[in-house]
Amino acid sequence: MSNLKMWEMTWPEMVSYIDSGYGVILPIGSIEQHGYHLPMITDSFFPTQLAQDVSEDVKMLVAPPIMYATNSRPLSGGGQTFPGTTSIKGVTFIHQVEDVIREFIRSGFKKIVLLNWHMENSNFIYEAAYLNSDLAKEMGVKIMVNEAPFDKLDDELMDYVFEGQFGGWALDHAGVLETALMMHLKPEYVREDKIIDDKPPVVVDYDIIPIDTERFVSKSGCLWKATLATAEKGRRLWDFITSSLTETINSEFSGGEKNE
Amino acid sequence: MSNLKMWEMTWPEMVSYIDSGYGVILPIGSIEQHGYHLPMITDSFFPTQLAQDVSEDVKMLVAPPIMYATNSRPLSGGGQTFPGTTSIKGVTFIHQVEDVIREFIRSGFKKIVLLNWHMENSNFIYEAAYLNSDLAKEMGVKIMVNEAPFDKLDDELMDYVFEGQFGGWALDHAGVLETALMMHLKPEYVREDKIIDDKPPVVVDYDIIPIDTERFVSKSGCLWKATLATAEKGRRLWDFITSSLTETINSEFSGGEKNE
Amino acid sequence: MSNLKMWEMTWPEMVSYIDSGYGVILPIGSIEQHGYHLPMITDSFFPTQLAQDVSEDVKMLVAPPIMYATNSRPLSGGGQTFPGTTSIKGVTFIHQVEDVIREFIRSGFKKIVLLNWHMENSNFIYEAAYLNSDLAKEMGVKIMVNEAPFDKLDDELMDYVFEGQFGGWALDHAGVLETALMMHLKPEYVREDKIIDDKPPVVVDYDIIPIDTERFVSKSGCLWKATLATAEKGRRLWDFITSSLTETINSEFSGGEKNE
Amino acid sequence: MSNLKMWEMTWPEMVSYIDSGYGVILPIGSIEQHGYHLPMITDSFFPTQLAQDVSEDVKMLVAPPIMYATNSRPLSGGGQTFPGTTSIKGVTFIHQVEDVIREFIRSGFKKIVLLNWHMENSNFIYEAAYLNSDLAKEMGVKIMVNEAPFDKLDDELMDYVFEGQFGGWALDHAGVLETALMMHLKPEYVREDKIIDDKPPVVVDYDIIPIDTERFVSKSGCLWKATLATAEKGRRLWDFITSSLTETINSEFSGGEKNE
Amino acid sequence: MSNLKMWEMTWPEMVSYIDSGYGVILPIGSIEQHGYHLPMITDSFFPTQLAQDVSEDVKMLVAPPIMYATNSRPLSGGGQTFPGTTSIKGVTFIHQVEDVIREFIRSGFKKIVLLNWHMENSNFIYEAAYLNSDLAKEMGVKIMVNEAPFDKLDDELMDYVFEGQFGGWALDHAGVLETALMMHLKPEYVREDKIIDDKPPVVVDYDIIPIDTERFVSKSGCLWKATLATAEKGRRLWDFITSSLTETINSEFSGGEKNE
Amino acid sequence: MSNLKMWEMTWPEMVSYIDSGYGVILPIGSIEQHGYHLPMITDSFFPTQLAQDVSEDVKMLVAPPIMYATNSRPLSGGGQTFPGTTSIKGVTFIHQVEDVIREFIRSGFKKIVLLNWHMENSNFIYEAAYLNSDLAKEMGVKIMVNEAPFDKLDDELMDYVFEGQFGGWALDHAGVLETALMMHLKPEYVREDKIIDDKPPVVVDYDIIPIDTERFVSKSGCLWKATLATAEKGRRLWDFITSSLTETINSEFSGGEKNE
Repeated sequence: MSNLKMWEMTWPEMVSYIDSGYGVILPIGSIEQHGYHLPMITDSFFPTQLAQDVSEDVKMLVAPPIMYATNSRPLSGGGQTFPGTTSIKGVTFIHQVEDVIREFIRSGFKKIVLLNWHMENSNFIYEAAYLNSDLAKEMGVKIMVNEAPFDKLDDELMDYVFEGQFGGWALDHAGVLETALMMHLKPEYVREDKIIDDKPPVVVDYDIIPIDTERFVSKSGCLWKATLATAEKGRRLWDFITSSLTETINSEFSGGEKNE
Repeated sequence: MSNLKMWEMTWPEMVSYIDSGYGVILPIGSIEQHGYHLPMITDSFFPTQLAQDVSEDVKMLVAPPIMYATNSRPLSGGGQTFPGTTSIKGVTFIHQVEDVIREFIRSGFKKIVLLNWHMENSNFIYEAAYLNSDLAKEMGVKIMVNEAPFDKLDDELMDYVFEGQFGGWALDHAGVLETALMMHLKPEYVREDKIIDDKPPVVVDYDIIPIDTERFVSKSGCLWKATLATAEKGRRLWDFITSSLTETINSEFSGGEKNE
Repeated sequence: MSNLKMWEMTWPEMVSYIDSGYGVILPIGSIEQHGYHLPMITDSFFPTQLAQDVSEDVKMLVAPPIMYATNSRPLSGGGQTFPGTTSIKGVTFIHQVEDVIREFIRSGFKKIVLLNWHMENSNFIYEAAYLNSDLAKEMGVKIMVNEAPFDKLDDELMDYVFEGQFGGWALDHAGVLETALMMHLKPEYVREDKIIDDKPPVVVDYDIIPIDTERFVSKSGCLWKATLATAEKGRRLWDFITSSLTETINSEFSGGEKNE
Repeated sequence: MSNLKMWEMTWPEMVSYIDSGYGVILPIGSIEQHGYHLPMITDSFFPTQLAQDVSEDVKMLVAPPIMYATNSRPLSGGGQTFPGTTSIKGVTFIHQVEDVIREFIRSGFKKIVLLNWHMENSNFIYEAAYLNSDLAKEMGVKIMVNEAPFDKLDDELMDYVFEGQFGGWALDHAGVLETALMMHLKPEYVREDKIIDDKPPVVVDYDIIPIDTERFVSKSGCLWKATLATAEKGRRLWDFITSSLTETINSEFSGGEKNE
Repeated sequence: MSNLKMWEMTWPEMVSYIDSGYGVILPIGSIEQHGYHLPMITDSFFPTQLAQDVSEDVKMLVAPPIMYATNSRPLSGGGQTFPGTTSIKGVTFIHQVEDVIREFIRSGFKKIVLLNWHMENSNFIYEAAYLNSDLAKEMGVKIMVNEAPFDKLDDELMDYVFEGQFGGWALDHAGVLETALMMHLKPEYVREDKIIDDKPPVVVDYDIIPIDTERFVSKSGCLWKATLATAEKGRRLWDFITSSLTETINSEFSGGEKNE
Repeated sequence: MSNLKMWEMTWPEMVSYIDSGYGVILPIGSIEQHGYHLPMITDSFFPTQLAQDVSEDVKMLVAPPIMYATNSRPLSGGGQTFPGTTSIKGVTFIHQVEDVIREFIRSGFKKIVLLNWHMENSNFIYEAAYLNSDLAKEMGVKIMVNEAPFDKLDDELMDYVFEGQFGGWALDHAGVLETALMMHLKPEYVREDKIIDDKPPVVVDYDIIPIDTERFVSKSGCLWKATLATAEKGRRLWDFITSSLTETINSEFSGGEKNE
């Protein structure tokens, strides 16, 4: 498989890919606690790996991931009270993504995919893309904003993976999906003996500031039944997710054809 | 019913409510196209009306709504290509909400509810609240972030309202829920003869910038089957939503008891 | 009289007005204490009502008012120590008005009037308009900045209204003019029994930070002789102000003729 | 007369003044066209000279003036279409003044006067001071915001200077007052042979963006009857202005007494 | 050797290190062209590797590197006209580093090292650290700003490495030092057959905007004699640099002793 | 010698210079402690004087200097703990310089020189210029960024001036160069009896935040051997610096030829 990591290329190598019609995928994640058993890079690891795994089939380079991202929210990531979770302000994040997109356009890319895994980044990423709307139009660039490449599984897969115990994507933080995927993709990142089922004492549908750690946040930071995870589930999930994304990108960008 | 609109009060009247332990609800919406049959204030009208309808029971004043808000996105509001939709940058929006919360705290409120209806404002509102986290802690203030007070209906109500044709909350823009509610709450705002069923030519789960109006946006701006709406559905929906919100706020803020 | 409130229109209705050459008026006010007898919406109520009352004659729609605006200053509004006064930072305000103007231009308006009542917004509003100068030129748009539509009364009217006791426009906060106008336009907003004459202990021509509430601010927040106000004065004032504004806009924008 | 220019001092010299209870005056002006006969530094020259002339009597140092300031407006300065007028954005200006005040406080000053001459800076300067309000309170600092030290002449002086032809302070740009003052204070700055009476073709009470140079701006940039100016008028004006300011500062700051 | 990459830890693992007195190193680099023979990650690779190589000896964790950083300048990096070079605005960069430092402090770190390799980031990084000065003081945190860990070689090493042909650190972009280091540390990153000696047609000591690519920038982007590089030089350089840094950090932070 | 200070000109005088092909030099300095013997304006005085002294030969006007600039750093200016040092945030500084450049372009200048003396401003100034890159290209403007016009002396002069005791440019703050230059250019600014040799207790090559005044900053604020300075050295240094700058500007801008 070719190595399409943009950051390991020299600039003439990158130019040659651009001249051949390649686009670029920007993985966006977070540095955020993921319970007792997953490392803090989890949300950045998945979109970067996903970008690499589809890169050849969609004819896109992979840009260095954005790892410092928006604040974790208690209901989907445990919130900004955990040590280790390292976030930046929403305004800083918007400008960072905005600036990087503008640079991709300056470099000559015509096809840009923003590939996010950290749910709290939603809307901020779209905003950053929208701020480049006029420039994109002028330069003939198309930007895809993909804020949650993991949440459109088919029913059969959902049943197989969650065994009827799906708690919603927000709660599944360091839960079944992420644990299973990590077991499959990077088992050395999983502290098998630390996997537990956990959940916030109270599950509500609103947030409270200052964060109410006693009631809305689990002690471990894992928000759901991680023990349901298996490497095999991870394999099937990854197959599904990479296939879907490949198809999505190719159908939108016409299969990596050379830019007109 | 008492009038608890903060903006119609004199300052000593407001102080007297604060001294009695009243909190404040900030309605947040948008000025956004809502198809051929609903006015552009729709997203601002609902949270303002909702705030007023629960205000007495939750012992909270209603603040002037924030109507100019974040960009409309194609998949949930038709996007920023419609004339009439009038938005502000995400950064401006965050700072506006941040500033207003800080002023509520300066005025002496200890209980603040951010009540949103425009889905695109999500995460931005949380960010604005979080930026006041230290101040809130110092001043003994609790801020509730309620970004979607409409999306937790029970199954029976869902079946009754959507008749098995629910397309997801994002698509239901100017759709069944909003049309029904407006028929019930403000029938003169509904252009009955303009109600149609519509949907985007293509429904995807990502965004494209520049906005692809031909493929992802319906011509009317209505994204779903508005013809399913009736005033009676609106009445039952409103009963459910107001009851839920009242219960939620009162359970979180202990029923409007006087601030300690 | 037609209803030209933009926010109560559907988007095609608005487009049809734009296509007929209609412009748009943006009312800008504040949420600010107005003594014991006037509500905090006062500064936002007047420009919104004024916009509506002239809208048909000047062929302009009325946009939703901007109510959260710049800090109150002690010498013209009592200053930012009163509970209830709810302001945003000057920088936030500039960006908000800048963003909204840009959206009006995107929607297709060629004639924009910024109609302000809150004196502290002056210069900030001009700045926001100026930031759109290049865009306005490119798009053939003309923006009128009207920061004080109330301060150009003729001598006869001044004599009649103030009876020789005019204290300057800054001091007349919740004073003769505003009380009289509210008696005429919205008597239910006036707490008649709370009307008093008041003034700051000391009247100076500079400001002190931190705000010196003991010396420069009246206890009530009313800065002048509100007891001089009558509904009849309000009627004559409103006639004068609406006529002047109508004439001003029509002479500048050529009477609502269709945009070339 | 002592030299109290802060910028010509060494840091221990400045500290010794601060320890003796001296405050600091920040002159704020503009770089702005002043017709055919006055230099572009005019608005910065006056407050700097004024600060120096009162400094000994009010026991305050003079800080380096802020010369690059807010946009010129057509009705009071000819507007931002003249070459030479060199302004910065309002947001930049606010932050600059905010930052400088914070540094004065860090240096140990307890008495700060913001002394402005450029009318367009009004409200922006107050905002910058207000942003330091909490810090000032915490550090026992008092900030005076003096946005127009020239506009409170007594009637007799007004009659003598304007000879019944006063056009309002806004219009008197490069007009009678400024020309007379410059003749008195710095005659080499006055191009005597270029002094003319001028005025905008149309005088209105609103602004238009993009700037309508044909109608609202005089060709010379002088907006009023500069030929009425004499050096003797300048002398009497300066006497009045310096005396007033001295009295104002001393009465507010208790005559330069040592900080408690 | 222990793995002290913070991003591969779970949050409790990180907390345990913090509790034992460990600090954190933030590597800061760039994504920037490095000639025909080095990859664009070069400036980010070195400080990250350096942080890892000293981490155990200085008892500090390694944080995820900041790779998107300030604009490349022609005289030290070829400038912002090369495709591939991907930078963010200086303002965005300052806020990003500022935010990340604040988060390190929130997590409990008392010892923070900012370790930079990209010369253009200088001063910006210090600014970001300085913006956290008050917080650091309050929390008992010490921040080291190390903007160029490579530029203090001793004379003997300089002679050995550059063989009398040192062109200054700015010019040595993708030059002797970086090429030699990469040969030693990550030979697979070096395109041996693309190594050339190059330099800008004209070497000046100022910059020109817009960038004058014809005169001030070499065609390859390599600014100096890369052919002088050898893996052995790289080894000796790395030994020197890692030793120096270890000593510097340990002497400043007292050898990784537990935080008091 | 002609007076080419832009601020002392009327706008038509300035236009006439621009029409003759004149450019503009923006002096940039600081207000920063300079030991016991030099005034705080030192860093602003030199570039302003330098601009004036070369202005006629390079056919450029001199703009008002920017005196409030970036934070002083301990290793090159004593740092932000000295009273008197009066700085603004880096972000504010960038925007100020950015705005002023844009205004120069609006005024019609085609040749702009940013002439800095305060080392801490480096990179920030380049950033401000770069932000105007697209505008400059569009308008045919060339901007020279000259961040350190003093640091390229020839060996003979270095030997004569420093007598073998050069400590690096950063340390030479209020040291040999600046003291000698001031003796030559403005002797009344030099407190001869206060000149001392000083240096920080410890000289390192990194910074520590919060500033470690005990170890890294000298008590006087002078960082090097000022007693080596003489007026004659100052004369020869100034001759060299002015000649170099004249040659540099003329060779880059083709000797002040009329703009095409």
